Amino acid sequence: MNDTRWDNRAANRRARLERAATLTRGKAVAPEQVTALLEAVIEAGDRVCLEGNNQKQADFLARCLVQADVKRVHHLHMVQSVLALPEHLDLFELGIASRVDFSFSGPQGVRLARLVREGRIEIGAIHTYLELFGRYFIDLTPRVSLIAAMSADAAGNLYTGPNTEDTPAIVEATAFRNGIVVAQVNELVDRVPRVDIPADWVDFVVPSPQPHYIEPLFTRDPAQITEIQILMAMMVIKGIYAKYGVQRLNHGIGFDTAAIELLLPTYASSLGLKGKICNHWAMNPHPTIIPAIESGFVETIHSFGSELGMEAYTAARPDIFFTGPDGSMRSNRAFCQAAGHYACDLFIGSTLQIDLQGNSSTATLDRITGFGGAPNMGSDARGRRHVSATWLRAGREAETQSGIPRGRKLVVQIIETYHGRMQPAFVERLDAWKMMDQGELSLPPIMIYGDDVSHIVTEEGIANLLRCHTEEDRAEAIRGVAGYTPVGLGRSRAAVENLRDRGIIRRPEDLGIDKRQATRDLLAARSIKDLVRWSDGLYDPPARFRNW
Amino acid sequence: MNDTRWDNRAANRRARLERAATLTRGKAVAPEQVTALLEAVIEAGDRVCLEGNNQKQADFLARCLVQADVKRVHHLHMVQSVLALPEHLDLFELGIASRVDFSFSGPQGVRLARLVREGRIEIGAIHTYLELFGRYFIDLTPRVSLIAAMSADAAGNLYTGPNTEDTPAIVEATAFRNGIVVAQVNELVDRVPRVDIPADWVDFVVPSPQPHYIEPLFTRDPAQITEIQILMAMMVIKGIYAKYGVQRLNHGIGFDTAAIELLLPTYASSLGLKGKICNHWAMNPHPTIIPAIESGFVETIHSFGSELGMEAYTAARPDIFFTGPDGSMRSNRAFCQAAGHYACDLFIGSTLQIDLQGNSSTATLDRITGFGGAPNMGSDARGRRHVSATWLRAGREAETQSGIPRGRKLVVQIIETYHGRMQPAFVERLDAWKMMDQGELSLPPIMIYGDDVSHIVTEEGIANLLRCHTEEDRAEAIRGVAGYTPVGLGRSRAAVENLRDRGIIRRPEDLGIDKRQATRDLLAARSIKDLVRWSDGLYDPPARFRNW
Repeated sequence: MNDTRWDNRAANRRARLERAATLTRGKAVAPEQVTALLEAVIEAGDRVCLEGNNQKQADFLARCLVQADVKRVHHLHMVQSVLALPEHLDLFELGIASRVDFSFSGPQGVRLARLVREGRIEIGAIHTYLELFGRYFIDLTPRVSLIAAMSADAAGNLYTGPNTEDTPAIVEATAFRNGIVVAQVNELVDRVPRVDIPADWVDFVVPSPQPHYIEPLFTRDPAQITEIQILMAMMVIKGIYAKYGVQRLNHGIGFDTAAIELLLPTYASSLGLKGKICNHWAMNPHPTIIPAIESGFVETIHSFGSELGMEAYTAARPDIFFTGPDGSMRSNRAFCQAAGHYACDLFIGSTLQIDLQGNSSTATLDRITGFGGAPNMGSDARGRRHVSATWLRAGREAETQSGIPRGRKLVVQIIETYHGRMQPAFVERLDAWKMMDQGELSLPPIMIYGDDVSHIVTEEGIANLLRCHTEEDRAEAIRGVAGYTPVGLGRSRAAVENLRDRGIIRRPEDLGIDKRQATRDLLAARSIKDLVRWSDGLYDPPARFRNW
Repeated sequence: MNDTRWDNRAANRRARLERAATLTRGKAVAPEQVTALLEAVIEAGDRVCLEGNNQKQADFLARCLVQADVKRVHHLHMVQSVLALPEHLDLFELGIASRVDFSFSGPQGVRLARLVREGRIEIGAIHTYLELFGRYFIDLTPRVSLIAAMSADAAGNLYTGPNTEDTPAIVEATAFRNGIVVAQVNELVDRVPRVDIPADWVDFVVPSPQPHYIEPLFTRDPAQITEIQILMAMMVIKGIYAKYGVQRLNHGIGFDTAAIELLLPTYASSLGLKGKICNHWAMNPHPTIIPAIESGFVETIHSFGSELGMEAYTAARPDIFFTGPDGSMRSNRAFCQAAGHYACDLFIGSTLQIDLQGNSSTATLDRITGFGGAPNMGSDARGRRHVSATWLRAGREAETQSGIPRGRKLVVQIIETYHGRMQPAFVERLDAWKMMDQGELSLPPIMIYGDDVSHIVTEEGIANLLRCHTEEDRAEAIRGVAGYTPVGLGRSRAAVENLRDRGIIRRPEDLGIDKRQATRDLLAARSIKDLVRWSDGLYDPPARFRNW
């Protein structure tokens, strides 16, 4: 009916592979040939995914891409989860790349903001992980993906080991749209321990001169947990986990949530909660969860990625963690994010700033960091239809007269009223607004919206926002746990006492918590060394966490 | 530190495999041995996934499981997307299974409701697909999965062909928690055309006596499209797609949306919309999308599953569809649902009943059908953070004075005011409430909640609910498009005219649409035969759709 060609991508893919033919033996490419390979298979203007996970980095391929001839490789549109390595931004300074769609830029946030101001980098949009994966299949499919794995065989089968992370999502989107997949691996082997990515989906494998970079992002040293954090953790356990019977949950990163993990075998056990709360987790293998596992608190954990030093421990606990036929852990960020959104009844995480509507943000001026996964986990999943007792109970509390009965996700923000350099956590107006006003973003970068938050926990108590049906109640409930911040000082004592009488604000004493009990003695582990001991020597902390 | 064993699942898996050892040659199992195999590898009380997709069915394994000795195999907890085959419920009548967690039960809905009333089946919960997949990794991980593929090699590598659907999600959850995966395949081959599931993840392959059952659920014959549907499709194209510049979208199943697809090359083209709307789709390969593809309207389509008869066509259009190295389509329900939730700016689907808050439901009495994927696609994705012009525009319309600026998903319900047997589509109270009142469900089975719906389209016009900021406006806007139903007759003419003046209700004439133009001549294809012609003979419709 028409003369259109419908296989342009396939034909173009063949042309790229032909250009690379002299550089490879089978699928293997020598490290010194990689920049030439990338110049052969990447075309100007391509959409390129340079695997930058939360942890695992295709760092060798990043270094090779930086060295590409900018006359041949330019105006790339980078689509990747995390901007973590200097090379990720070098690409823009060198003119190799010009546009980026991403999720998180933690360590490169300041430099990213500067490059945006200088007009040297164009941000398409900032996503959460699952959104970006979704767009890989809709309108941001990578043409070339540069990924990282532990090992490969000659056919190109990949073994990712515990850090599978984003790799399956990236490769599936690329390989099944006639794109090109280049994998850096720590070693070439005769037979991979297990197949995480089938050879069919991989075009080139590169033995990297060094093992890929990986960062222990989720390790928190128990030695640094404060008694305030312990008090807050007690309130969360008694006032939220026990009250709602929270069995399926996700913990964000931070000392606040690490404290909760370390109180499960002690405080939660003493309340008779073992087996009743915290059974099923969507969470990376935090070292601070070890005592709870060893104490029989935990039934299952599915993970986004792994954590450095936890390899042997997770492999030795296959009843708890997802593991493969080789015995090592299998993670998968896409499935874990889907589970965090839809299969968990609670998300709890820390933040930097909260306003009087309960909106929270980690955005600070002169830094563009992105959102990671928190907005996905920390939003009420309105598409959810399966019920649980926890979800129904939260929904009943939130119910208004005219409303239809629904469930609700518990979304808890845990935060000290002042943090770090005596910055108040509670503010009348988030710094996020200034970023929008500066014209860098279309919307203020809010991590979790106030109408999705169910509880705010500070050292002063718990504010139950589910039961606040007016803006006034909500603002007063927030002031009521905001301590000596200007926002907290703006409270009406009568209004706060009224909210307390109604059970909307609960102080430690209202929960029957004796503050004097909130000491470090309550932690199941008080140091990294304690965690190693709990693990029977299986946990192997990175050097920076060892002080013995 | 304790004597707990942490590899009970692995040990138990080995015991199961040992019991099956005499029944297999390598991983291959002869069809006549399959019931014995299932008796060997399944234990009483197991959680079992019997792959029941929207379309592809592990039907041979279902028949074998029905024949299992109930003294050995009983009290199974079935966790599967769709209850489609009689065998899926026979399992409960026979006492082999007792509990089910599922997503959709279309054809078995009446029988399911009866079994629930008789106390012979216990429903855990009813999910959408992505929720159930999420729970596979949290608290509903299958111990044994019985799946379906096109072919397998001796090692156990699977080729699913175009209908990959749920298989990767099911197998990953099962295989990486020391479960057991049994695959029925249409044939054993020396080498699979491509690897969709690696052999590592599969324990047994069974050559099925017949190819697995598959149903053409998404095929709508253009011959049955009415002029009312054409008029509604014109309103959607001009009043919604053009207005918001909708480029990334998902269409539900139905004649209403098929009409829109068939108007793209004609009506939408005449409005100059080619290249401006409907570029990127999350959608199965509906045959009615063929003319839009051939006319150059469509850039990409990613699919949940395939559609019977579309195999050769999708394979011949790799620039549009995701395809593998073998040339055939690759689908993946998990990724497509994630994309539908997070990467699409619009969902449009039909429903059966809508109330005055805009809540819609397909539930009818004496039938438990479940939700499929619509609630996931048809909810505002509050965890979304990436912006698009469409999403921002919808968000601005929905903004209230006090609110923080946000984007909004467009969620459109398209429905004739009376359907089928002169049942009014608009009601004061949904039948869904009666199901809850009968005690079968904890919440009324609402498909899409009113506060997630952005527009309702009927033959009378479009009601824009984004701009309704009071319950009264919303109810009156709905009455204003509800025609001669009792709900529609309850309208206040003045209120409706006021809403029309404010642009909240738009009639065809307000949109500049000439109703006389709404004839079948406007359809790009008026029959299945026309679709075959548009496809250059590549579309091969199932026999039931052929009348020539």
